[in-house]
Amino acid sequence: MSLQLYGDDTPADVKNAKGLHLITQSTPNGQKVQILLEELADVYGTEFTTTLINISTNEQKKDWFLRLNPNGRIPIIIDNTVSPPFPVMETSAELVYLLKFDKDNVFGFKDELENSDALQWLFFWHGSGAPYQGNLGFFKRAQEQLPFAIERFRKETYRVFGVLEIRLSGKYTGEPRDYLAGKGKGKYSIADIGTWAWVKNYTFSGYTEEEMKALPHLVKWVDRIAERPAVKKGTGDKYKQQ
Amino acid sequence: MSLQLYGDDTPADVKNAKGLHLITQSTPNGQKVQILLEELADVYGTEFTTTLINISTNEQKKDWFLRLNPNGRIPIIIDNTVSPPFPVMETSAELVYLLKFDKDNVFGFKDELENSDALQWLFFWHGSGAPYQGNLGFFKRAQEQLPFAIERFRKETYRVFGVLEIRLSGKYTGEPRDYLAGKGKGKYSIADIGTWAWVKNYTFSGYTEEEMKALPHLVKWVDRIAERPAVKKGTGDKYKQQ
Repeated sequence: MSLQLYGDDTPADVKNAKGLHLITQSTPNGQKVQILLEELADVYGTEFTTTLINISTNEQKKDWFLRLNPNGRIPIIIDNTVSPPFPVMETSAELVYLLKFDKDNVFGFKDELENSDALQWLFFWHGSGAPYQGNLGFFKRAQEQLPFAIERFRKETYRVFGVLEIRLSGKYTGEPRDYLAGKGKGKYSIADIGTWAWVKNYTFSGYTEEEMKALPHLVKWVDRIAERPAVKKGTGDKYKQQ
Repeated sequence: MSLQLYGDDTPADVKNAKGLHLITQSTPNGQKVQILLEELADVYGTEFTTTLINISTNEQKKDWFLRLNPNGRIPIIIDNTVSPPFPVMETSAELVYLLKFDKDNVFGFKDELENSDALQWLFFWHGSGAPYQGNLGFFKRAQEQLPFAIERFRKETYRVFGVLEIRLSGKYTGEPRDYLAGKGKGKYSIADIGTWAWVKNYTFSGYTEEEMKALPHLVKWVDRIAERPAVKKGTGDKYKQQ
């Protein structure tokens, strides 16, 4: 994997970073990884540095960025603790990668089946939730207003919220859960982090209080996770553009 | 995880299955898992049984199916080699799960960084490729024809094809690759299987020969994988509805 990682236009703070380096903007996708890094810092004192970019200027479509992630999407992690430095793209793959810094399995699972459970819910949100909620935002803000498209993504996003409600309410098991993955009531994990960063924006996405009342376990789950200090830090001022 | 896996309406061939059981239809998502199971059968003699369902009748929205996957999407694997039986949803999570039957790492990687590489490309297709190409199909077939929406997903799908071309052509490394993940030229893996099942439909999705000529490494990669006996079997008559 002898990537030519850096070009002439690579920012100095990226090129000269030591240890874990995160290139991000505080969108839902950026926040997923910001939160896990803050959680790791709280538990293990894990250190990392950041480069905050502005995607509205298409910084992430420039050559220096595409060398690190040819998909041109934030966030990226570069792990400078290995040689050559190892870039990781795709938020959910970044969450999984960062578990190597979680020696005590605080945010992941040692058990093979629980681990698969977490991966299933990560992929669920990555492939269903985020694209639906993302497209809902796109079509709501689009220059051409298409009620049919907005309604499709509005309905599908609400449907996947409903899938999370089924899971958390224990509809088919008789056992309500606190978190998405793991035995019994579940354990707060990367599956929750990857999902929460999007779902918590339900009001911004246009869902009414009335609609959310039909998903009581999901709303409680959103509120439960919002209370965590690392979640507050990972979505807070530290990551705001100056 | 004491799921009440089966209800009164669960088909007998699902309820009574031993070993690995796949519930599928031969769509791109179904084919991903069909292919890997056929590959494992070729290498290790791994045994599995199947239930073919018809999603056009919304079988996957029935109660028996939602107990196994509350998202109501094919395919599902049920692993009856563990007790209680363990259901796995989300195609890419299923591919990762099946690696437990790949003792010699033929389709996955032992090396931590190569393993992350494969996971990154799996998530890339799962979260960008498949939703774009899937929405392209949806809007092309939709009752209300919206050129703006069709064009969005047509452009984005072609863009993600271009991301795969960057990867395979070695644009930023100087080294062309045969496969998406792994050192050097890469190794055929779950990352390719998860991506190929969709990309191979580029003509059906409406891309012209002229457009695909601009992506020569991608087209060769499609053809290279199509030659594999297990790929032919996993996309073949065995999985056609009677």
